[in-house]
Amino acid sequence: MSQATDQITPEVEADEDVYALDPKVVSAILYAVEVHDKDQLTALMDPLHPADIADVLEQINAFDRRRLIELYDREFDGDILSELDENIREEVMSVLKPDVLAEAVRDLDSDDVVDLVEDLDEPQQEAILEVLEDADRVAVEQALSYPEESAGRLMQRETAWAPEHWNVGQCIDYLRNADDLPEQFYHVILVDPRMRPIGNVTLGRIMGSRREVLLKDIMEEMFQVIPVYQDEEDVAYAFNQYHLISAPVVDENERLVGVITIDDAMIVLDEEHEEDILRLAGVGESSMSDTVVDTTKQRLPWLAVNLVTAILASLVIAQFEDTIGRFVALAVLMPIVASMGGNAGTQSLTVAVRAIATKDLTGANVWRVIRRECLVGLFNGLAFAVVMGVVGVIWFGSAQLGYVIAVAMVINLVVAGLAGTVIPVLLEKVGVDPALASGSFVTTVTDVVGFFAFLGLAAAVLT
Amino acid sequence: MSQATDQITPEVEADEDVYALDPKVVSAILYAVEVHDKDQLTALMDPLHPADIADVLEQINAFDRRRLIELYDREFDGDILSELDENIREEVMSVLKPDVLAEAVRDLDSDDVVDLVEDLDEPQQEAILEVLEDADRVAVEQALSYPEESAGRLMQRETAWAPEHWNVGQCIDYLRNADDLPEQFYHVILVDPRMRPIGNVTLGRIMGSRREVLLKDIMEEMFQVIPVYQDEEDVAYAFNQYHLISAPVVDENERLVGVITIDDAMIVLDEEHEEDILRLAGVGESSMSDTVVDTTKQRLPWLAVNLVTAILASLVIAQFEDTIGRFVALAVLMPIVASMGGNAGTQSLTVAVRAIATKDLTGANVWRVIRRECLVGLFNGLAFAVVMGVVGVIWFGSAQLGYVIAVAMVINLVVAGLAGTVIPVLLEKVGVDPALASGSFVTTVTDVVGFFAFLGLAAAVLT
Repeated sequence: MSQATDQITPEVEADEDVYALDPKVVSAILYAVEVHDKDQLTALMDPLHPADIADVLEQINAFDRRRLIELYDREFDGDILSELDENIREEVMSVLKPDVLAEAVRDLDSDDVVDLVEDLDEPQQEAILEVLEDADRVAVEQALSYPEESAGRLMQRETAWAPEHWNVGQCIDYLRNADDLPEQFYHVILVDPRMRPIGNVTLGRIMGSRREVLLKDIMEEMFQVIPVYQDEEDVAYAFNQYHLISAPVVDENERLVGVITIDDAMIVLDEEHEEDILRLAGVGESSMSDTVVDTTKQRLPWLAVNLVTAILASLVIAQFEDTIGRFVALAVLMPIVASMGGNAGTQSLTVAVRAIATKDLTGANVWRVIRRECLVGLFNGLAFAVVMGVVGVIWFGSAQLGYVIAVAMVINLVVAGLAGTVIPVLLEKVGVDPALASGSFVTTVTDVVGFFAFLGLAAAVLT
Repeated sequence: MSQATDQITPEVEADEDVYALDPKVVSAILYAVEVHDKDQLTALMDPLHPADIADVLEQINAFDRRRLIELYDREFDGDILSELDENIREEVMSVLKPDVLAEAVRDLDSDDVVDLVEDLDEPQQEAILEVLEDADRVAVEQALSYPEESAGRLMQRETAWAPEHWNVGQCIDYLRNADDLPEQFYHVILVDPRMRPIGNVTLGRIMGSRREVLLKDIMEEMFQVIPVYQDEEDVAYAFNQYHLISAPVVDENERLVGVITIDDAMIVLDEEHEEDILRLAGVGESSMSDTVVDTTKQRLPWLAVNLVTAILASLVIAQFEDTIGRFVALAVLMPIVASMGGNAGTQSLTVAVRAIATKDLTGANVWRVIRRECLVGLFNGLAFAVVMGVVGVIWFGSAQLGYVIAVAMVINLVVAGLAGTVIPVLLEKVGVDPALASGSFVTTVTDVVGFFAFLGLAAAVLT
């Protein structure tokens, strides 16, 4: 690739703010609301995608939000509701006039309505369902009969399918006259006489083939079918692992009941990632638009768990009060061993949690990974043992202190690697989300072991 | 939805192991390799998707991997290479016989070849490019001329496009006779006479419309164009935010040069998430198949940063050696304040880092978010101040000690909320990835402030 690297190529655009809301537009919108200029507001909102309008609503305060919605009035589009954070969404729905809300909901696809109403209380849910046309209402009600977070909730019920013996011409003629096709579709699903899917044909292949070609002959090789009760997390995994664009959903008798497309799977994947990242940090759910009270409540339980952990560590320290009283240098150095263990443990557990989620950590390699993490802990422990041994000698002029901190460091980093891998694996085995609970367990282990090893050795060695 | 909730519905399938590799299959494969039974190996591998075969290769050890590849020989499919982790991929490519490798690479789409060769050294890169047909090689070389991680690397160069004045019939006839269509496509891009994209028409709409309908009249309303030098992270964001299925890529003159589809964007989104989650935990890159030496090297720098942080905290403690010598209870309790601050800070910073990535934290709401995080810190601080004040009094029988730890707790949790939000926002402003660096800064702040507030107050108050 010499010509590629020699050539002067522009850099990748590093503009962080591409696609971010322009603060000037937000200010202009707020000004239009302030002076009650509806034409100006509509002119400013018109070029924005519903997802961006939702972002504007999320980023302004509740007072401005109410005034904006009241001024915007009938222009309010149903898609904005779908894009809103759940907590803001309920607030917005309560501000919208009933007839504006009804109009907004009627414009939505049935799977978006499902998403909108599934978290509402029954009276609110019924109020929304009432405004729908009969066919849509039935579709939404049937979707709601599947368990939450199942493939049944995620799928569209409208599918483009054809009998397995059709040719391209028959299929095109059928599609041209059908009136219940999905809004967007990318495959025609071939089904056997009992409505069981046997393969996918891409629209591109259909359009690129002569009319007499059999659909069966241009079917895609790879084919994945999703059971309707499958967890949406597994659905997202399948789309990601097998690069699916759309997949038929089947019931217990393997009959076609719907189709899931990659855009739905992408949203689930994004939500799962968000959940993992927040859970690892001890934050249950969170959004920029949560109130102070909600946020305080979300964070408090996790801090309470941490407090218990920290008190456990303090109890260990308390066992060595006499030793610390004699050698105050121990109090100065002891947080270092615990902190390094906590960090190394977090490294190991994050890698393990992530690998469990992507199914890269399985029975086939778990022992090798545990062995690796312990060895990594040993080697890094030895490296930092040398550093801290030297620091201990120079700072406090005590070879014994240097020796104690070095040995404690090695012990704690090996334990960190072990605990950081074994704890998430065990939690997953007993059915607890490892992202949720691993952190507290692992830092408890590294704190307790860190203080105990350091202070215990000190008590034994220092005289 | 009363009928929905009353009805007995099966639970969502909670089978964690769906789509995970069956350990029995892995064992059977390893046995076939052991006894050198090629037919049995082929029979076992045949039903597996290339992504699953790649997982098998990643999860077994290097010795088995080499034997498996040698036995599998000519059956080796190019898609397996695309699915492999980068570090394993190079190893596998060096084990494959040159003609098997050539055959495998020749079967791949040009964008997969780009992905395969972009990280190779030049001689290896040239060796692979040599085996390609001329047209493919040119396509790969042109893609490589765009910067790494740009839209240009991600896009397919083959596009399905049509002049803006065409009707459905003209478009179908053209597609049926075209021989350079992409493998998979979902839209036909309408272009003006200067090849600038003006809109997308879905294949579904084309197939569902009569031949005389103008493409322009069935064009999609929403339309996003991707600049060829745009960072792939922003590309993924656009797909996620605007629910794109495919988007045309344009050069500096806004002329169509390629197309990016949602499956490519989904892979980038997944990689970005992985990067964020690992960086937040102080792990640069990581895979289950990394060696002990590689893993040790990846983790060491982050632990070194943490060591500096921990030593800074120790220096603060050292200022109060006299006080600790007089009141050893301080040594017992001081890690609690620091630990709670570190946890609260991590909560705030994770929420902030995530919101920056999803562009939900902007100039429009940053002050409100900072205010919220400080208030949350204040309220949780007050809650835990009461708890720890009581614990201090009961455990050590000292009201003064209870008072000191309570006040230090409030101070440190407010500082944690402030630092956890301000630090990632500032890092992002100066162009540093907040996921990468925020953690060390925030825990340094909460450690230093935590120890200083607690011990400083103690020194002033306790007598």
